[in-house]
Amino acid sequence: MASVKAGTEIERLIQLLAKLPGLGPRSARRAALHLLRKRDELLGPLADAMQAAREKIAPCSVCGNVDTCDPCSLCRDERRDPKKLVVVETVADLWALERAAALNARYHVLGGTLSPLDGIGPKDLNLASLVDRVQAEKVEEVILAVNATVEGQTTAHYVLDLLADLGIKTTRLAHGVPLGGELDYLDEGTLAAAIRARVDF
Amino acid sequence: MASVKAGTEIERLIQLLAKLPGLGPRSARRAALHLLRKRDELLGPLADAMQAAREKIAPCSVCGNVDTCDPCSLCRDERRDPKKLVVVETVADLWALERAAALNARYHVLGGTLSPLDGIGPKDLNLASLVDRVQAEKVEEVILAVNATVEGQTTAHYVLDLLADLGIKTTRLAHGVPLGGELDYLDEGTLAAAIRARVDF
Repeated sequence: MASVKAGTEIERLIQLLAKLPGLGPRSARRAALHLLRKRDELLGPLADAMQAAREKIAPCSVCGNVDTCDPCSLCRDERRDPKKLVVVETVADLWALERAAALNARYHVLGGTLSPLDGIGPKDLNLASLVDRVQAEKVEEVILAVNATVEGQTTAHYVLDLLADLGIKTTRLAHGVPLGGELDYLDEGTLAAAIRARVDF
Repeated sequence: MASVKAGTEIERLIQLLAKLPGLGPRSARRAALHLLRKRDELLGPLADAMQAAREKIAPCSVCGNVDTCDPCSLCRDERRDPKKLVVVETVADLWALERAAALNARYHVLGGTLSPLDGIGPKDLNLASLVDRVQAEKVEEVILAVNATVEGQTTAHYVLDLLADLGIKTTRLAHGVPLGGELDYLDEGTLAAAIRARVDF
């Protein structure tokens, strides 16, 4: 980019945009030019929104969600069933479940999955606080809404072991055919799970 | 996104990020979470870089490039040959040519292409200032570095007509096989152009 000579401000903007997931050097250049073309409609508001996010948004000390207040609005929501606790890997998963709007429970964000190869052990996840919460908040059901990946399932089993002595009901999401899914395009594992878990029509 | 309840600041950040080219609603959510995780390394610096870009970067009144000074650093560069003027569609094309570093000329950014269907006529492009510059700066060669698209070529022919009476040498980029390109994957038009323009080995 040294040859662009369009001012170090532009080069710096492009370099930082390229660090966003989903943007590479080329799309970062495109995004930077788009921002400069839409100075008042996009560049200004986005700079302000980032400044506001930087100042106001912080992780919730209870559940690990991100919000402008601590505890977050989900933890403060009195209408949510305090007896159900949904364990998720990331805030993105929490948002996905909230969009589905099928649960009226509280959350606990682990902040990742156990991954010995990447050096992520139990102490790097919010596991100790999970046990504390389950006991302090008198939770009756822990719903393990982790990803259906090897890492997710390993983490789920670890959490199961942690909670084993507390005598709490633990559940996991159902496996099966996604809505709109075509059997011909599904992997054998999912199909086998859907057959094993078949229900009366 | 109303169900996310993660604060209007986050929703606003996601909505604005989703307006960047190359980012949709899902990747904007991912980018927002990435920014919040990397608050000090990325969110803060990017907010500052956008603020700096908003305040300092403006279009060059001479060539249409974007820079922190006006005229831009390319127009001010004394080492560039003032007798050669490269006409490009957009600033992105200017940057691409600068990366190629094969030219030591000045530029003129049209700001788009003629496109009657989109309501873009000659008055919407920097065409009048091009003729003025060619005459005032005693340009001897105009290099039409427009895209090899229908719109680009239409625009090139329009510029050719504009400059016809000035008796100036006008050139265009060569067509041919891209470096690293495989003939089997090239379209017939490019191959035919490459054959017609063949040169002695």
